[in-house]
Amino acid sequence: MWRLPLRTTAALTTAFVGAILASQAQAAADATEPTPFKSVILIIGDGFDDQHVTMGRNYLVGHNGKLTLDTLPVRGAVQVQTVSEDGAPLYVADSANTATTLATGVVTQIGRVGTGPDDADVVTILERAARQGYKTGVVSTSSVTDATPASFVSHVANRGCENPKIILGAERYGTYFPGCTEDASNNGGPGSIAEQIIKAPADVVLGGGLKHFNTPLHGSERTVLDQARAQGLAVATTLDELFNANKDQRLLGLFAEGNLPVRLQGTDGRKAEDPDTSLLNAVDARLGSVTQPEPMACEPNPDFGVTPPLATLTEIALDRLARNNDKGLFLMVESASIDKQSHSRNPCGSIGEIEQLEEALAVALTFAELHPNTLVLVTADHAQAAQIVPEPSLYEQIPVPVYSPGKIARVKTPEGGLMRINYATNNFVSEEHTGANVPLFGNEPARDLLPPFVTQSELHAAMAEYLNLNP
Amino acid sequence: MWRLPLRTTAALTTAFVGAILASQAQAAADATEPTPFKSVILIIGDGFDDQHVTMGRNYLVGHNGKLTLDTLPVRGAVQVQTVSEDGAPLYVADSANTATTLATGVVTQIGRVGTGPDDADVVTILERAARQGYKTGVVSTSSVTDATPASFVSHVANRGCENPKIILGAERYGTYFPGCTEDASNNGGPGSIAEQIIKAPADVVLGGGLKHFNTPLHGSERTVLDQARAQGLAVATTLDELFNANKDQRLLGLFAEGNLPVRLQGTDGRKAEDPDTSLLNAVDARLGSVTQPEPMACEPNPDFGVTPPLATLTEIALDRLARNNDKGLFLMVESASIDKQSHSRNPCGSIGEIEQLEEALAVALTFAELHPNTLVLVTADHAQAAQIVPEPSLYEQIPVPVYSPGKIARVKTPEGGLMRINYATNNFVSEEHTGANVPLFGNEPARDLLPPFVTQSELHAAMAEYLNLNP
Repeated sequence: MWRLPLRTTAALTTAFVGAILASQAQAAADATEPTPFKSVILIIGDGFDDQHVTMGRNYLVGHNGKLTLDTLPVRGAVQVQTVSEDGAPLYVADSANTATTLATGVVTQIGRVGTGPDDADVVTILERAARQGYKTGVVSTSSVTDATPASFVSHVANRGCENPKIILGAERYGTYFPGCTEDASNNGGPGSIAEQIIKAPADVVLGGGLKHFNTPLHGSERTVLDQARAQGLAVATTLDELFNANKDQRLLGLFAEGNLPVRLQGTDGRKAEDPDTSLLNAVDARLGSVTQPEPMACEPNPDFGVTPPLATLTEIALDRLARNNDKGLFLMVESASIDKQSHSRNPCGSIGEIEQLEEALAVALTFAELHPNTLVLVTADHAQAAQIVPEPSLYEQIPVPVYSPGKIARVKTPEGGLMRINYATNNFVSEEHTGANVPLFGNEPARDLLPPFVTQSELHAAMAEYLNLNP
Repeated sequence: MWRLPLRTTAALTTAFVGAILASQAQAAADATEPTPFKSVILIIGDGFDDQHVTMGRNYLVGHNGKLTLDTLPVRGAVQVQTVSEDGAPLYVADSANTATTLATGVVTQIGRVGTGPDDADVVTILERAARQGYKTGVVSTSSVTDATPASFVSHVANRGCENPKIILGAERYGTYFPGCTEDASNNGGPGSIAEQIIKAPADVVLGGGLKHFNTPLHGSERTVLDQARAQGLAVATTLDELFNANKDQRLLGLFAEGNLPVRLQGTDGRKAEDPDTSLLNAVDARLGSVTQPEPMACEPNPDFGVTPPLATLTEIALDRLARNNDKGLFLMVESASIDKQSHSRNPCGSIGEIEQLEEALAVALTFAELHPNTLVLVTADHAQAAQIVPEPSLYEQIPVPVYSPGKIARVKTPEGGLMRINYATNNFVSEEHTGANVPLFGNEPARDLLPPFVTQSELHAAMAEYLNLNP
């Protein structure tokens, strides 16, 4: 039997904290919960469309295997929704507008975070849940100020406004980013995403993004992190601090300057590469020859180091949220870099983050076994660029060199196959998102709650309905 | 309210033959069926993955709309399975090996038609159903000798062996195609796909492919079609002949020389095109500018003419199969050119064939309403190249020209959007298939029959189980 690779570290950590959930459940059982304890765990795989789901399956369990999410009893599809500034439909989204729709039900413009197409703040499901006494949290492998987590706990005009400095505008990618000056605290606004997160009702916020919290507040030497501590938040930046943080305080855990490092990389850090064409082929595309990039293995990313796995962050969050709680909880868990690694044409990077999503899902399902009224959903925010293409080409027998006009990675799978991944949505340093409807997976409570095809707005409504949230 | 475009002709034809189904159902009801009448209608959208489903939705009903298939109560995903000659897994399939798996349950090699990896013939679900007294049929918008329909009614080593001439080998696409000489009738084999179709137990075979049947039998002046007539088959090549064909004969309907013409095309026949880059951009990719191809509308394909719509072929097939039948039926219906038009980078072509699939599905669902024990399934054989990409690019604000390295079509949608489609899996005249798991849709009887994630082999087994077929 072939086994999941590279899980040793994660598995050990998970075993270590696994006891926490079990003891917590026992305590809950002893207390004979007076009102039904109801919870929603929403797991978002950023860019986790069916090409990526299949990439993950082929690599992690083999093409005849089943991922944990393949064993869930409910499966469906979700239509992604976006509008342009003039109200016309857009067919491809970004993570900000889609997370905003999942968080608020409102269909909005690319870049919006917790704001509608008119830039008005829209209350999020996390805020509504907190208001009704649910414990709430957000966990991500990105900076917690990045679009997906930010859309559940803050409201700004543009996803770029992550800290008190950049919200005032800055040069970025060779162009001027105007910031979100109306939202800035010095203009009487609620402040940048980082400033809003520390005031948000979330009981647990875990991920990356330390640099945004180490940014000074406007006109002050104090940073956002100083402010967080002054407000009584527990702050953790190491696993030790995470495990030992005071459980009576709200917790902000930041384990990297920006996004968390990913678990896997290609051999020697290789990503997808250009096929190498011969001189004759450059003269006439029907002539000459082409050499495909060398196959690569997936190997541990040395930068991952002691980064807490997503499953560990999820367990810690659930443990804290379920403590002294007879109401229930709302937790959003994001595996963010499936998307980010696809943007940068690194299939091994995406695959490792799919494995992280699978492990976090296993934690959520264990929690749901211990707490029966727990709705567990897995979905994506939008589709992404990577495509599994034939190895060799379908046209291999034709005496003409056939190759991708974009970049190719040939990934050796543990079951002995060679999986060829194509990245060819543009010629830029970063690939484009794509527009397919995205998959939806759910545990048993999802069965009567959701039809098999919904919009992201309808998915939001179903979660709110499950928790009986007031508008 | 925006309405489906271009349906007038199809709707009229459908209304014309609609009465047939109704009268047939009344007759069945009057007869108070003694044994449960059980049927399976398997609708295959060739290459109909989630990108194509979403392309179809966005164009045909708008991005907030629901296709007929979106309203089905059961939705899931199907893992595509393929093996290489040395038994290693392959991650991208072709229509022959996947249709063979759907038809027989056996996972096989690319190009195989009704044969296993060792080239042994494998009995198909259609043959098993016919043997147990079910009426059976195959309907496709491709040549009926093409891979998908062929895999239900014939057994050859390679999908190319469509007629008595080419089965002996031929020059093809600048290379030598060796044929399937062991299968040839002059070598004591069962003959080409066309020769096998006329001997197959199918009661109805409808689609294109006249040229393959007009090919002379080996060493004879008689064609396959002559032979078909001699064997007592009714042959139809026009709508008139189709409507008037003797209902007591097996029916072979061939409505084009090769594949049936498709319903839609881009403005003036335009397909996806290369973005036009400036001279300066050719010098340095960071400089200069790029002009995207002009937007296109979808318009009726003048070649479609009097081609019978897939819905009409489906109605005729169901009417004939259900007549004087108290056992049930198995019908495979394929919208073949979703795939073929994606190979040739024609999004409007694919969209029109998705509309045809939707109409055929509506016919199948009407039949299922009249005959409650009817399992209706819709799936794809494999994923395909087309991707919906952002219009404009996500990186439009960056002062660098950003464009697809492949070909782009910008399709104007009836709801006022502009849907940009990227084709960039290779530089050849025909795009590559891709490897994502494919969608599955089912009506109510599918609910207890199928878990939400299955392999193609498991999907085969479920259909056979529904019909209580012996091995």
